[in-house]
Amino acid sequence: MEKYHKETFSRIPAEKQQRILDTAVAEFAANGFPGANINVIAKKAGISIGAMYKYFGSKEDLFLTIIERAHGLLEEALDDIDHSPGDIFQRIEMMVRAAQRYARAFPELHQIYLDLTSEGLSHMSRKLSGKMETITARFYEKLIDSAMAQGRIDPRLDPRVTALCIDNLILMLQYSYTSDYFRERMKIFIGPDALLDDEKIVRGMMGFIKGALLTQKQPG
Amino acid sequence: MEKYHKETFSRIPAEKQQRILDTAVAEFAANGFPGANINVIAKKAGISIGAMYKYFGSKEDLFLTIIERAHGLLEEALDDIDHSPGDIFQRIEMMVRAAQRYARAFPELHQIYLDLTSEGLSHMSRKLSGKMETITARFYEKLIDSAMAQGRIDPRLDPRVTALCIDNLILMLQYSYTSDYFRERMKIFIGPDALLDDEKIVRGMMGFIKGALLTQKQPG
Repeated sequence: MEKYHKETFSRIPAEKQQRILDTAVAEFAANGFPGANINVIAKKAGISIGAMYKYFGSKEDLFLTIIERAHGLLEEALDDIDHSPGDIFQRIEMMVRAAQRYARAFPELHQIYLDLTSEGLSHMSRKLSGKMETITARFYEKLIDSAMAQGRIDPRLDPRVTALCIDNLILMLQYSYTSDYFRERMKIFIGPDALLDDEKIVRGMMGFIKGALLTQKQPG
Repeated sequence: MEKYHKETFSRIPAEKQQRILDTAVAEFAANGFPGANINVIAKKAGISIGAMYKYFGSKEDLFLTIIERAHGLLEEALDDIDHSPGDIFQRIEMMVRAAQRYARAFPELHQIYLDLTSEGLSHMSRKLSGKMETITARFYEKLIDSAMAQGRIDPRLDPRVTALCIDNLILMLQYSYTSDYFRERMKIFIGPDALLDDEKIVRGMMGFIKGALLTQKQPG
């Protein structure tokens, strides 16, 4: 894992590290990267601004440290799924459920990820998309290639476009639980109870994805 | 169409209206809503700030006028597709191609739409998502209900979750042409030529969507 914080940060208690990072996550999510203030973050985390700069060289380094932790979470989640028993459909269902669970557990991290996609942060987004999206893309590629080799999914599918389609569905699902805009949009599409019935969403999405992957009948 | 501009704005030449709105689109896309400055927009559009406030009550009203125009574009595009001959798959393919075309023609409008989903603008997003997403959701609902009634797609699909899945794929495709972050992500998934080969994307996505909608074989 790349390190954006200074060595001194590793030496403070884990609990204090976590308090500083949690405070920063809340501030970045509420105000965006440009609007967040590192002095305010230090104050809210109960440390001096001098201490803050002993841990992080800049607001950008603090931000990148958070993103690195998020990458760690993603890698752990994918690794768990990779080591679980099950076929491609069971693994994709685990991804869908993990998306729901992580979106609810870390709404602010998801908001920060969504903010990353806006043009104002594009100087960071090239560096960051490389890392996170490569982890995800390789995961799907492996899953799809092996299912295709075993004859479990339609051999006529384009494996890479298929991987992108599946991840687009899962990403939009995460946004639908974490952004006001996409939450409203999901209610308009599915109904006011959309956010209360997770099983309905899992069933609907898995029906769609299974259909997409299984060998097709000819059109009626 | 709701009007957020003042009556005086309707009375200036269409060309001048367009110049003011185009300038505003560029500024909002480059700086986000919070960062954009109405004085700068007036200056770049070659009008006085006094004139600007004769046309729009506030920066928010100027912004909402742009969003209303974007709704108009979306309604026109959906209306065209609605009145074209073709079955559900041909219509969805028209949506995919329209997404590619509109994303290239109006990248800044798409960036603004993406920015709308960030938390900073959530006071506007409830109002705005209502309008735009309702237009789209009703379009898909009609398309899916009628194809289901004609026995052209799998009757076991959840029509509303299916509509959301299809629109999620099309929305993410638009983002993949207009946001630096999602552009890089698409290249990581599909390869460096992803943005050069539109037909490959259309074929791959349509293969996925057709599979999802057609009546399924039992898993192998």
